[in-house]
Amino acid sequence: MAFSERVTRLKSSLIREILAAAQRPEVMSFAGGLPAEAMLPTLDWTGLPASMSQYGTSEGEPQLREQLAADARALGIDCQASQVLVLSGSQQALDLAAKLYIDKGTEIVVEGPTYLAALQTFQLFGADCLSVPLQADGPDLDALRAHLQRKAPAFAYLIPTFQNPSGVRYSEAARAGVAALLDEFAVTLIEDEPYRELTYDAGHAQPIAGRLRTASWIYMGSVSKTLLPGVRVGYLIASPDLFPHLLRLKQAADLHTNRIGQWQAMQWLGTDKYRQHLGELRSFYRERRDAMQAALLEHFAGLADWHVPQGGLFFWLTLKQPIDTRTLLADAMAQDVAFMPGEPFFADPAAHPGCLRLNFSHVAPHRLHEGLARLAHVIRKAQAAQAAA
Amino acid sequence: MAFSERVTRLKSSLIREILAAAQRPEVMSFAGGLPAEAMLPTLDWTGLPASMSQYGTSEGEPQLREQLAADARALGIDCQASQVLVLSGSQQALDLAAKLYIDKGTEIVVEGPTYLAALQTFQLFGADCLSVPLQADGPDLDALRAHLQRKAPAFAYLIPTFQNPSGVRYSEAARAGVAALLDEFAVTLIEDEPYRELTYDAGHAQPIAGRLRTASWIYMGSVSKTLLPGVRVGYLIASPDLFPHLLRLKQAADLHTNRIGQWQAMQWLGTDKYRQHLGELRSFYRERRDAMQAALLEHFAGLADWHVPQGGLFFWLTLKQPIDTRTLLADAMAQDVAFMPGEPFFADPAAHPGCLRLNFSHVAPHRLHEGLARLAHVIRKAQAAQAAA
Repeated sequence: MAFSERVTRLKSSLIREILAAAQRPEVMSFAGGLPAEAMLPTLDWTGLPASMSQYGTSEGEPQLREQLAADARALGIDCQASQVLVLSGSQQALDLAAKLYIDKGTEIVVEGPTYLAALQTFQLFGADCLSVPLQADGPDLDALRAHLQRKAPAFAYLIPTFQNPSGVRYSEAARAGVAALLDEFAVTLIEDEPYRELTYDAGHAQPIAGRLRTASWIYMGSVSKTLLPGVRVGYLIASPDLFPHLLRLKQAADLHTNRIGQWQAMQWLGTDKYRQHLGELRSFYRERRDAMQAALLEHFAGLADWHVPQGGLFFWLTLKQPIDTRTLLADAMAQDVAFMPGEPFFADPAAHPGCLRLNFSHVAPHRLHEGLARLAHVIRKAQAAQAAA
Repeated sequence: MAFSERVTRLKSSLIREILAAAQRPEVMSFAGGLPAEAMLPTLDWTGLPASMSQYGTSEGEPQLREQLAADARALGIDCQASQVLVLSGSQQALDLAAKLYIDKGTEIVVEGPTYLAALQTFQLFGADCLSVPLQADGPDLDALRAHLQRKAPAFAYLIPTFQNPSGVRYSEAARAGVAALLDEFAVTLIEDEPYRELTYDAGHAQPIAGRLRTASWIYMGSVSKTLLPGVRVGYLIASPDLFPHLLRLKQAADLHTNRIGQWQAMQWLGTDKYRQHLGELRSFYRERRDAMQAALLEHFAGLADWHVPQGGLFFWLTLKQPIDTRTLLADAMAQDVAFMPGEPFFADPAAHPGCLRLNFSHVAPHRLHEGLARLAHVIRKAQAAQAAA
């Protein structure tokens, strides 16, 4: 049996394994990034054209591409519908970008921490990841410049708005600084924004893609966090030099994105009922975030540090007394509590012990205190054991 | 701008480019493999559970996996639902298999001719393709043995039932011969069967996957040719040693397949209304095949040789006087006729001039004669010019 060399780098999807284990109804899960079921919109299939059952174009439905381009232009990204590629979920943009850029040993820039599933996809293709530490208002620009000066990374993969896992939103200044550096060193930007619309406080910041003058770029988004994860409809918008390659890679991957899901997305994006739905979603999640913050203050005040996220779906906790949080999973699951260890979100996990990611969108408020109390107890017990060892 | 080395091997999808050019309503297109729109079933959304909007499992919907496994067992493939992976169209199986097996220079066995989009995906990942000539009842087994003896190919990719493009159905003896060889040399089988149910005459042959004793295997199928191309629902069933790797590769590619399409497929597979639909589909396509055969006899009798396909969607013509059929495309399109040149279906196109693939499912019967007359004229004109040169 001779597999490809690539398969030696194929890791299990820790998130999906924890999610599978957390399916039992008695488990209080802070692990996933699942939308609240109560907020999934009701689907209306009236008017679905019969033609949506036939093969479609690889680029995506024309009306959907027009809408996505219009939405991006409203965010300051100068683009046309011809630059929009509809995808089978935005995860697919990571696969296509990896195919476009990554050979074994190709250097790329990622945030530290960064999105786990992106890290795994890029590493599967053989990338060497250069990490730029995330600070409260964006990446460490000196560290980014140092990487760009010393190496020639193929691209920088960044999640500037309510980052998964850290919750960080880059300031306007940080965005301008990143754009200037990528232009200066002619490095492609891959900007991932699934959480942009999940904003709970005042404040707004424009995408980095719209600030670039010369560098190539891929901007990616999804309807999974705001509408319908199950239809698997995401998209990318790319600078014209990259688009033809990405289109061909899409064709080789799965021909085109399912049209029934695209049609559903078209019924919502750009409409008043979508704006109303987003308003309700923000209120709902804002309440859950505030409830989580109150519960964290009660159970974790002496145990960890964190910022209150202004959007997205996660709290990111840094333990005051570091411990490899992966070692806590079994004990927590035995207590019917699931969470995401923070180490795998770093390109060098062993160097970053002691963080955890807690989702606040999915656990019902009345179980929040019990879940966090149990988790705090598991952590305290492990820390005591570590201190005694 | 530094793309991956892989991108130097990224070709355009000729099929999809011709299809795009053939969109004009005045074009008589024999190029694609599109189901007849008239035979797309009407969709009923009554009873779609709200949970189908939420994220799903990477493996696919449990009930659909059970049904697909039961259908495969009925064909003689010993398998369980746990070996079924639902895909975003069966094209995705090619992408996952390429990732699992192919490094630059990895040798694989394919048929000559073989499915164009498979060839492109495997070559994109760097495969060296060893071709086994197809004969009327299956592959040249001596040539297959010679490849297996001299090389150590990672897998053999075969389309034994109503092959695209050739229409060949392997005999029972050819299937047994292939299975014995793959077992003897411990080479993985990838068996692609999108056309199995599109059978128009008597005769049946069991999949090769069910005949293997020791070799690993991936069996792949789709609902695109029998039900709904637009929902992008395909599947693979794999031997247990391969399944966990393929599952992780699926997670890295797009997390999971769209659930709404899976739910639609579940409403049909295994039901009486699906069996009835298949019966109607076979009658409809049988008539179109017979009409095409009659028209071909009239316009191509002195021009080409062919077998009448017993299933599938294509006639495969071999010109009596070979000419590179790719050079005919522009002239044919100028006459509002589209077809698929045969050369790109071979790993070594230049060595196989003079074949064409003609689809019979999509062109309305009343335009058949006009389309084929024009195409025959284009070919005769080019052959005369070639002879005079």
